[in-house]
Amino acid sequence: MSSELGRALRLSVFGQSHGKAIGGVIDGLPAGERIDMEALFAFMDRRRPGKALSTQRNEADVPEFLSGLQEDVTCGFPLAFAIKNADTRSGDYAPFATKPRPGHADYTAFLRYGGFADMRGGGHFSGRLTAPLCVAGGIAKQLLEKRGIFVGAHLFAVGGAKDVGFDPVLLTQEALLAPGKKEFPVCDDARGLAMKAEVEAAKSAQDSVGGVVECAVLGFPAGVGSPMFDGVENRLAAALFGIPAVKGLEFGAGFGAAGLRGSENNDPFVLKEGKVCTETNCHGGILGGITTGMPVVFRLAFKPTPSIAQKQRTVDLAEGVETTIEIKGRHDPCVALRAVPVVEAVAAFALLDLYLEEGRWN
Amino acid sequence: MSSELGRALRLSVFGQSHGKAIGGVIDGLPAGERIDMEALFAFMDRRRPGKALSTQRNEADVPEFLSGLQEDVTCGFPLAFAIKNADTRSGDYAPFATKPRPGHADYTAFLRYGGFADMRGGGHFSGRLTAPLCVAGGIAKQLLEKRGIFVGAHLFAVGGAKDVGFDPVLLTQEALLAPGKKEFPVCDDARGLAMKAEVEAAKSAQDSVGGVVECAVLGFPAGVGSPMFDGVENRLAAALFGIPAVKGLEFGAGFGAAGLRGSENNDPFVLKEGKVCTETNCHGGILGGITTGMPVVFRLAFKPTPSIAQKQRTVDLAEGVETTIEIKGRHDPCVALRAVPVVEAVAAFALLDLYLEEGRWN
Amino acid sequence: MSSELGRALRLSVFGQSHGKAIGGVIDGLPAGERIDMEALFAFMDRRRPGKALSTQRNEADVPEFLSGLQEDVTCGFPLAFAIKNADTRSGDYAPFATKPRPGHADYTAFLRYGGFADMRGGGHFSGRLTAPLCVAGGIAKQLLEKRGIFVGAHLFAVGGAKDVGFDPVLLTQEALLAPGKKEFPVCDDARGLAMKAEVEAAKSAQDSVGGVVECAVLGFPAGVGSPMFDGVENRLAAALFGIPAVKGLEFGAGFGAAGLRGSENNDPFVLKEGKVCTETNCHGGILGGITTGMPVVFRLAFKPTPSIAQKQRTVDLAEGVETTIEIKGRHDPCVALRAVPVVEAVAAFALLDLYLEEGRWN
Amino acid sequence: MSSELGRALRLSVFGQSHGKAIGGVIDGLPAGERIDMEALFAFMDRRRPGKALSTQRNEADVPEFLSGLQEDVTCGFPLAFAIKNADTRSGDYAPFATKPRPGHADYTAFLRYGGFADMRGGGHFSGRLTAPLCVAGGIAKQLLEKRGIFVGAHLFAVGGAKDVGFDPVLLTQEALLAPGKKEFPVCDDARGLAMKAEVEAAKSAQDSVGGVVECAVLGFPAGVGSPMFDGVENRLAAALFGIPAVKGLEFGAGFGAAGLRGSENNDPFVLKEGKVCTETNCHGGILGGITTGMPVVFRLAFKPTPSIAQKQRTVDLAEGVETTIEIKGRHDPCVALRAVPVVEAVAAFALLDLYLEEGRWN
Repeated sequence: MSSELGRALRLSVFGQSHGKAIGGVIDGLPAGERIDMEALFAFMDRRRPGKALSTQRNEADVPEFLSGLQEDVTCGFPLAFAIKNADTRSGDYAPFATKPRPGHADYTAFLRYGGFADMRGGGHFSGRLTAPLCVAGGIAKQLLEKRGIFVGAHLFAVGGAKDVGFDPVLLTQEALLAPGKKEFPVCDDARGLAMKAEVEAAKSAQDSVGGVVECAVLGFPAGVGSPMFDGVENRLAAALFGIPAVKGLEFGAGFGAAGLRGSENNDPFVLKEGKVCTETNCHGGILGGITTGMPVVFRLAFKPTPSIAQKQRTVDLAEGVETTIEIKGRHDPCVALRAVPVVEAVAAFALLDLYLEEGRWN
Repeated sequence: MSSELGRALRLSVFGQSHGKAIGGVIDGLPAGERIDMEALFAFMDRRRPGKALSTQRNEADVPEFLSGLQEDVTCGFPLAFAIKNADTRSGDYAPFATKPRPGHADYTAFLRYGGFADMRGGGHFSGRLTAPLCVAGGIAKQLLEKRGIFVGAHLFAVGGAKDVGFDPVLLTQEALLAPGKKEFPVCDDARGLAMKAEVEAAKSAQDSVGGVVECAVLGFPAGVGSPMFDGVENRLAAALFGIPAVKGLEFGAGFGAAGLRGSENNDPFVLKEGKVCTETNCHGGILGGITTGMPVVFRLAFKPTPSIAQKQRTVDLAEGVETTIEIKGRHDPCVALRAVPVVEAVAAFALLDLYLEEGRWN
Repeated sequence: MSSELGRALRLSVFGQSHGKAIGGVIDGLPAGERIDMEALFAFMDRRRPGKALSTQRNEADVPEFLSGLQEDVTCGFPLAFAIKNADTRSGDYAPFATKPRPGHADYTAFLRYGGFADMRGGGHFSGRLTAPLCVAGGIAKQLLEKRGIFVGAHLFAVGGAKDVGFDPVLLTQEALLAPGKKEFPVCDDARGLAMKAEVEAAKSAQDSVGGVVECAVLGFPAGVGSPMFDGVENRLAAALFGIPAVKGLEFGAGFGAAGLRGSENNDPFVLKEGKVCTETNCHGGILGGITTGMPVVFRLAFKPTPSIAQKQRTVDLAEGVETTIEIKGRHDPCVALRAVPVVEAVAAFALLDLYLEEGRWN
Repeated sequence: MSSELGRALRLSVFGQSHGKAIGGVIDGLPAGERIDMEALFAFMDRRRPGKALSTQRNEADVPEFLSGLQEDVTCGFPLAFAIKNADTRSGDYAPFATKPRPGHADYTAFLRYGGFADMRGGGHFSGRLTAPLCVAGGIAKQLLEKRGIFVGAHLFAVGGAKDVGFDPVLLTQEALLAPGKKEFPVCDDARGLAMKAEVEAAKSAQDSVGGVVECAVLGFPAGVGSPMFDGVENRLAAALFGIPAVKGLEFGAGFGAAGLRGSENNDPFVLKEGKVCTETNCHGGILGGITTGMPVVFRLAFKPTPSIAQKQRTVDLAEGVETTIEIKGRHDPCVALRAVPVVEAVAAFALLDLYLEEGRWN
């Protein structure tokens, strides 16, 4: 088992990068919800390849809905969708069947599936599989928004360059959603220039570069989540590590909290217009696994795209000798860049799942 | 639902800090495995309170086994155990029922359970609940060790002071297990002195301090795990965020990878004595959610203990006014310190679960 | 994994018949619910051994609550309980370690756990394990009753003798609960005499006899359940086959429906006092996996108690030869008789789980 | 959530009867298994509509495989398939939106989904959704057969007419598979004539008739399954009640066991060619939830097809008055008849799931 997510709301993702189609089945959506298709496609467009700084592979990426909708309204039954794979150049990947690319899942897929894995284009591990995540998460985002819950993300760091972070206390809906409307999704455009320069520098060096995506959630109700293994952090973590290339996750002050004193990290409770809040938000909106009502804030570390044009050392599994490879193909120099909407999508799906599970939709 | 973990191997944890008992039920252990009780109690002793740098609460913490064992050998049926709560001073906590302690789950428990939560001593959120985790994980560690799989951790950072990390490539079993044998569980004792000084400084300032725990796993088979949402990272993350005070998790190069180029972060495949390895280990032993056979390496950020003796600002939920509190009680100045064996325990449990789930025990 | 039940409400059962204790952990109970302990113990008393027609083993069977309650009110955290095993005569069972009793799980436990299973008194398979089911289900029954939902059962058949069934349309709360108040739990006491005679005849012949238990649920809301694998029938079935000795389950007209025409079996929709009902109730309150609001009605077939005093043929697993055994011990001549409250308990737990899962508690 | 099945092997079913497509995603199939497409289509043909005694709706029912296969060999990734809905006459069903058909899920779907359910042709509740079950189960059957495990079923009863049952002790592979090769799937063709006459009599009376399907499994290993809620009976029951129109399930002697003495129902253990067997098989191959190695035998009660051409009474939900309806459409007079391969399919899927979960594939 592998490619399923959720409890009250379930997602089953399928597809290989160069197979016939990719897609998913969503089970547990409430009935009677109209999906704004234009908004959904606009959201998916944010991760679409074929833009300036990303892979040149060009796919329409328009999902065909097979079930679960009647005239764009959910009917309560499982919602299935498929996205045809049109533009594939499988030949590019042939050599890697026995010469695993460093940093890729070629070798582990070989171990796990004994040579039967369809790894053309990265197979089921491909970044292309984030398209179904965006369909499912884009729908989840729309449902949450109807309840006044907004999920937004921005590119927080690329290599050594950094954006400013979301304000974890004063964050407005406008500020949250602003980066998603830009071609280069940052809060501070001036800093964005330096970040973009890092991507371009990596690209022109036939290399790639890592990055950090920050995500925040506004309007999520307080009191959701459970102690121990069913906290909001556990649930988000289990989902977010499903995004390819994620190697780290922190909530609120995160790793920074390790360097703080309790007197600095403890967020004092205060009253604002009669409502219990915290003055600061080092806790990232979650205490004891349960939401406090403050913005939920987390950051994800993305490794550099493993596919780079430089010659790399590897092992020929068939011959049992060391060798080198060169990866042609088409690749994003910074996977974190296109991951921004994917992070929003997966977070939205996991949060809607929790929301539904606690019976808050009724 | 909240306090359950695992799929092929299941743990259900129960208990409040000041209730009658804490404990757990483990379902899915293979039959016929002898538990070395002396080793188990020695392991639990590593997290036991009552030592110099930790809370002065004194509990024997000896689990009573209620089922699942015959003369210390697993019989295949659910293994249940209970640890009596002996030394409780509930009076210390009475004021916090309506005046939530900053950084604690008092407020969110109030939201979630509407005032009915038994929050004496932190209730089910208390660090005391890590004792059942250590029983379950201590048993899991023993089973893994019989298969040549070793899990070890050390205190990697406290405030601004840092230990050296485990060598992610050359790590030996001896080096892995060495910190666990020390009263102050670090790799480099000289650096440990500076780290200890941070704890003591926080303590004498009536404050607390955060930290980082690093954990590694040696001998875990290659090829375990699945893509997307069922990878080793997802499974470890879902479990590890169940440890109180964890606010971040990173695998391999983790957040550091965000600052690297692909040419730096990609670990070249090489042959060592005929075996496929990677020359470096930025991937932390996991690619595409599946183990490569290299050491699994991850780090957890712990926030500073929220209980500090200083006066803190909070809200009186009953009166609806801002107020202050002082926490007397007994508290660890650095929760990360005693968390070291807990991290090993939870990681061991999650990995044994994966191991059993993939049918590798047979 | 084996001994866990439920999704929003979870039960983990532990214990062997002759181990230290049996018990369970319930996770997911709403906070703030007062448990009527007197009513709970009275309910458990209905399945207690030591009565005239049942095994002579005498156990107080009083659960000790270890967590999850404060002054008999649920606090939202996992509720754990243990029942000490006091009166055990393990010597009685020694011979069966290698000579499996026909109709028992001795042989399959040997296959499954390779000789390590603690099968004294039937181990984890023992009817004694229905005591924790009655604790969990007795609590569930109380919670359901607060919402106007009542679960009742009666002994429907023993050998060739039959009770009258519950009226599936006109069933009142009084009629539903009447059998549970009798020592011999039937609807029609006259018929009960013939049924009792069957039990006594079996007993005096050093034999045992099978039976059928019928259960009904009043007041469960309409519209609960989901199509395919998550219908009310699926969920009840998965739970009810967990009761030892159950070999069949039917809803509504059940196997009788196989002999009917559609024109007989289809229940016409009618209006009663403005409410949509069905005139008959062959569907047993469930259509398409979803409740209609009519009484939920089902019947369970129980095999005869496999432990009988007559000499029986078996195989000596150690010697590899055919042999015979005689079972001394203490046994119910008709397991269905004491199963009546167990059926109510398991049904109540499964239905409360569905009720909570659909967010109807809020 | 609703339409998902399995633990180590997962099935997610989607589609409405008159939507764009029906289908499913199977996650957890071992890699490297060749699917015999001709055999799969032949198996699916057994449930195909358009034959003499069944509905006249004509569908090619050929699944298109979207992922998970490379040249008919499983690649380890989720296997998705879709079956286009071609021949739909939605107009036939329009009146039932507010006038629920007796015995159908129209009314409960209205309660559950508030009028948004796409119930054309029965929506997601339609018998048409058994086609994806046959794809998934047909694949499972092929995998089991490679391990020497065979699943077969026959029509055991229709109305008052009965077939002979499978011999629960001496059943051969040939006898098991024989009914599936016949147009009218019974063991005894002479008895089959009387059964067929029941179907025809119901049909010519513009009525329908119920039936019983018996299923057996040969070659399934002994020692599979777990006590309490994870026994083979629990797992099969949870799956089999997902087949539309099932109202009862019994294992081995089943409801008949309720009328037996222990001395009759206990199956003596004997040695046959050095192998431990039971002389009789009242236990249906399962003791304590665990397989004994004897044939697994169970029977399912199917209610009569609820769609009949006679005028029936119902309620107009929009007007709030009693009324009548006449169902035109195209319907099987005996749903049990076409259910025979569906029972095999669902049983095979559930058993392969258990087989994989226990690590027996490796």
